[in-house]
Amino acid sequence: MGKILEVDLRTGSMRSFEPDKTDLEAFVGGSGLAARIISQETGPETDPLGPENVLVFMPGPLTGTKVPGVGRHSVCAKSPLTGIWGEASCGGSWGMRLKQAGYDGIIVRGRSEKPVYLSVTEGETEIHDATDLWGKGNFETQEFLTERHGRQTATSSIGQAGENRVRLAGIFTDGQHARAAGRCGMGAVMGAKHLKAIVCGGDKKVPVFDDQTVQELNKENIRKMQEASKATTDYGTAAGLTGIEARGDLPIRNWYEGSWEEQAKEIDGIKLAETFLTGRYYCKACPIGCGRVVKLDDGPYASVETGGPEYETLAAYGSLCVIDDLKTLCIANSLSNDYGLDTISTGAVIGYAMEAYEKGLLSGYDTKEVDLSWGSRDGLLKMIRLIAERKGVGDLLADGVRAASQKLGGVAEEFALHVKGLELPMHDPRCFNSVAVGYATSNRGACHLQAYSHCYDYFMTLPEYGYPEISDRFGVEGKGKMVAILQNIMAMMDALCMCKFMLEGHITITHVINWLNAVTGWQMDAEQFLTAGERLYNQKRLYNVNLGISRKDDTLPHRMLTHSRKTGGAAGHLPPFGEMLAEYYEFRGWDEMGVPTTETLSRLGLTRP
Amino acid sequence: MGKILEVDLRTGSMRSFEPDKTDLEAFVGGSGLAARIISQETGPETDPLGPENVLVFMPGPLTGTKVPGVGRHSVCAKSPLTGIWGEASCGGSWGMRLKQAGYDGIIVRGRSEKPVYLSVTEGETEIHDATDLWGKGNFETQEFLTERHGRQTATSSIGQAGENRVRLAGIFTDGQHARAAGRCGMGAVMGAKHLKAIVCGGDKKVPVFDDQTVQELNKENIRKMQEASKATTDYGTAAGLTGIEARGDLPIRNWYEGSWEEQAKEIDGIKLAETFLTGRYYCKACPIGCGRVVKLDDGPYASVETGGPEYETLAAYGSLCVIDDLKTLCIANSLSNDYGLDTISTGAVIGYAMEAYEKGLLSGYDTKEVDLSWGSRDGLLKMIRLIAERKGVGDLLADGVRAASQKLGGVAEEFALHVKGLELPMHDPRCFNSVAVGYATSNRGACHLQAYSHCYDYFMTLPEYGYPEISDRFGVEGKGKMVAILQNIMAMMDALCMCKFMLEGHITITHVINWLNAVTGWQMDAEQFLTAGERLYNQKRLYNVNLGISRKDDTLPHRMLTHSRKTGGAAGHLPPFGEMLAEYYEFRGWDEMGVPTTETLSRLGLTRP
Repeated sequence: MGKILEVDLRTGSMRSFEPDKTDLEAFVGGSGLAARIISQETGPETDPLGPENVLVFMPGPLTGTKVPGVGRHSVCAKSPLTGIWGEASCGGSWGMRLKQAGYDGIIVRGRSEKPVYLSVTEGETEIHDATDLWGKGNFETQEFLTERHGRQTATSSIGQAGENRVRLAGIFTDGQHARAAGRCGMGAVMGAKHLKAIVCGGDKKVPVFDDQTVQELNKENIRKMQEASKATTDYGTAAGLTGIEARGDLPIRNWYEGSWEEQAKEIDGIKLAETFLTGRYYCKACPIGCGRVVKLDDGPYASVETGGPEYETLAAYGSLCVIDDLKTLCIANSLSNDYGLDTISTGAVIGYAMEAYEKGLLSGYDTKEVDLSWGSRDGLLKMIRLIAERKGVGDLLADGVRAASQKLGGVAEEFALHVKGLELPMHDPRCFNSVAVGYATSNRGACHLQAYSHCYDYFMTLPEYGYPEISDRFGVEGKGKMVAILQNIMAMMDALCMCKFMLEGHITITHVINWLNAVTGWQMDAEQFLTAGERLYNQKRLYNVNLGISRKDDTLPHRMLTHSRKTGGAAGHLPPFGEMLAEYYEFRGWDEMGVPTTETLSRLGLTRP
Repeated sequence: MGKILEVDLRTGSMRSFEPDKTDLEAFVGGSGLAARIISQETGPETDPLGPENVLVFMPGPLTGTKVPGVGRHSVCAKSPLTGIWGEASCGGSWGMRLKQAGYDGIIVRGRSEKPVYLSVTEGETEIHDATDLWGKGNFETQEFLTERHGRQTATSSIGQAGENRVRLAGIFTDGQHARAAGRCGMGAVMGAKHLKAIVCGGDKKVPVFDDQTVQELNKENIRKMQEASKATTDYGTAAGLTGIEARGDLPIRNWYEGSWEEQAKEIDGIKLAETFLTGRYYCKACPIGCGRVVKLDDGPYASVETGGPEYETLAAYGSLCVIDDLKTLCIANSLSNDYGLDTISTGAVIGYAMEAYEKGLLSGYDTKEVDLSWGSRDGLLKMIRLIAERKGVGDLLADGVRAASQKLGGVAEEFALHVKGLELPMHDPRCFNSVAVGYATSNRGACHLQAYSHCYDYFMTLPEYGYPEISDRFGVEGKGKMVAILQNIMAMMDALCMCKFMLEGHITITHVINWLNAVTGWQMDAEQFLTAGERLYNQKRLYNVNLGISRKDDTLPHRMLTHSRKTGGAAGHLPPFGEMLAEYYEFRGWDEMGVPTTETLSRLGLTRP
């Protein structure tokens, strides 16, 4: 690893430092190393939208190399949406460009008086006035900065949502081929700092300890991986949407209904390929290319080659809001990319508003200008704007489902689907028992990517760690342990900044470790890999514990624990949550309150703040 | 039914009225009729401790007759402990004395400037100055008023706890043979009104429609009932404490541990009989006599014949706080009766404090003067005083577990065992699946008496309503429905003000209906009895719904859903709560939010406020 850039926006000062070698080996990079830094610098007293919050951009040790799937970076801070540990992982090219500029990470502190952007190019970092860019969307902002700084740069920026401190705002990169650090409101943190964008680029070569081994590993594995992931290449992440509906995994009508068979076919990846798809796009070093390029014949993006919606977006804006019109969903997706909104949380909060409206709970708000009935296409598109602009009922929703439900109060808290303040992503805890434990214990709130267990309860295996067979999705015994192991593994994937799609078919953790060792010169084995992941997971947990998070917060929305659906592939099933959580705690070495024991911490070389 | 007395303490005015006949038939009496009245007069804007709250004392249609087990009355108001529907049922003689004074109920409104007490004797009701009584305990107060008004009167009063608006305060009657309207903080409501006591007595005969039938029914059944309840007569309600421990039903160390076998034997009803027991006492018209008279050789009650602890008290002050010294528990019981504290909630909040102390969470409070270690006998007795007097850490606890945990915040909310703000009584939802549903849905918060289902999951049957066999305590299917039926039945028992112990052995609901018809001249059948109970239950639910209660509140403490105990008779078991709740809602005819549907309401002749 090289240097980390520190920028203080209040003073305009910049410096760089080489991270402590022990920290590097213990916390690896990406969201792991960021957790170490943020834990040292923020705590209970930190206002996530105050100048004292620290925003960390961090690629991983593999980013910028030819190892497949590592063109990612993490963005981390104390989250303004949840008030606890916040992290978001982003694909595209920006992480590689930062490394090519000679940096392994950026720490942003303070708040600028006026809007600024930052350029980080080889040997030169500069803070620029961004008054003219303030108020503009991501597409225009990024296009402008690419024009100014050259095609070999990449820009991470916020749209109007981040500027307006919408707590659902992400940080976006790569223009129409949009990639987002979407979750946990990182865009609002950036907006609160008056930082519009960071442009990166350079010619530095990312050092590789044993390039020949990397090349051999690539040669041996990449084609096989591509073959295993053909459906994702052909149809994107929504390839399996109809299958997801069939299993009972798709959220429908704010997680109330169990089936939506005919409509699912109208919005899946195959339908997209038959209608608006014109191509695909790839993150740097990705051999799969799940990104969709679409072209619409009318609407605000008519005849633009724009990014198409992923599975999460199609489910959040589609089935969750009962909208089965693919064109509307494509427009909603690009609008969100442009305004800079996380489509998961935004779809979730709009679906929430539709349910609140149906139940007559929005009478205190002006809902005349926007149709909030279930399935309203026009309502969806208008709400995205209103949220980004914090106008009318959009202002209520701009702080997320938890805040909105608390503001409305009473029964409105009933159907607020979140864990620790983060809106549920688009996999149902009633469809996979592991997802129930995973959502309840994820360090950033409800998250499918911190354990990624819905895949291991369905088609993936983890032979190195005792899971050579696919797990039974309704199994109970051993499920808590499996989730903990997966969270440790995925914490490492997010520290390496390697895309989890790499693990879909041919590639196993053994391959990942081989690549890691070849790039870094480390001699990590499977056991050490797992322990490193466990350290990262516990570091984030400790951060949250210090903020008051404990067992009481490791739970699921009431609807997930008590409302079983009448139809669909998981009809009648509710996760036996308590048993699994108890096993999870025991395996984790956490005490009855959900706090890592002294023994656990000492084994991992961690200390309580 | 006769007249209901209305007293306005602000103006001193009194009047009486005959309740609407339709209301009487629909809401019966006791807590049923009180629910009707309180629903009409209070709502979201009512401060439970404000003068606008309405405190209703209400015996049932059978109270004062020779029907067995009906010497009870209900005390109801909006609860200052929970903020929702509050009711407490009280044994003893007071209900009968009120009827003998010619009244079927008292409604108390407003707040007196100075402390007063009320006397209600035949043909004469009077408000008296009670300045001299203010600050005195129940024993002295009641003794004084009995001296003044005669041995044929009974007094309901509050001790210092109620005066100090301790939200755990009850309303007590019958001196050393204490009976309490314990739960939901009714004593604080009375204290807030500056009403120290109500003395009742008179010579009116309670009218009976068909006295001969009543006598025949008594002759046929009372002896058989007595035989069936012999253990309760001999050993009181704590007869089965060791069996309760063996089943895994006893709360130990704030509900954390699973077994306490040797210690349980030290505090059960048999041990009491072998040590301090000198006699028993009976509520009016009771053939069983579960009340214990004890005499201690030292301590504050030395050589007084005082009331002995019931099962709930022994568990709350004993196993829950890990105290196995019977003499201490006897003293704690009489102290609570004198100060006027509900032993369930008070034991629960002291156990809570012991856990908080162990975990180092009371550092902001002066705990030097009181030993809050687990099992501290001295700590228990001191804490009872400090709570009643709202001194030091007692002031924190005087508002109940929920308020204390919210004040302490963070992990302190972890082990706050309550539902809707009411501390759990002494039966474990992990020991009986029905108790899980019952606690979660009880209209007054965690309550074992609103469904009484722990008995039906253990030894009682309900042949009239499809339960000729004892239910499987870990069964799931049908459990939600059973709980709803039992809640309807028990709502009727609380409207009739008939003691649920009557149902322990020989007596069935058919007998109860026969007695009811004989006394009132009604011609109710089993189906109508059930529907009447359903109406009462839904009336209370509607009251709560109007205050914002909904499905989200129908839940259990996290510890009950996620902490399974390692030892004991219910080791490893957690209630599969969600499935049962769903069935419960469906059977109840409540919508997804837990609100009775229009259809349900119209079937029961109820309307939303």
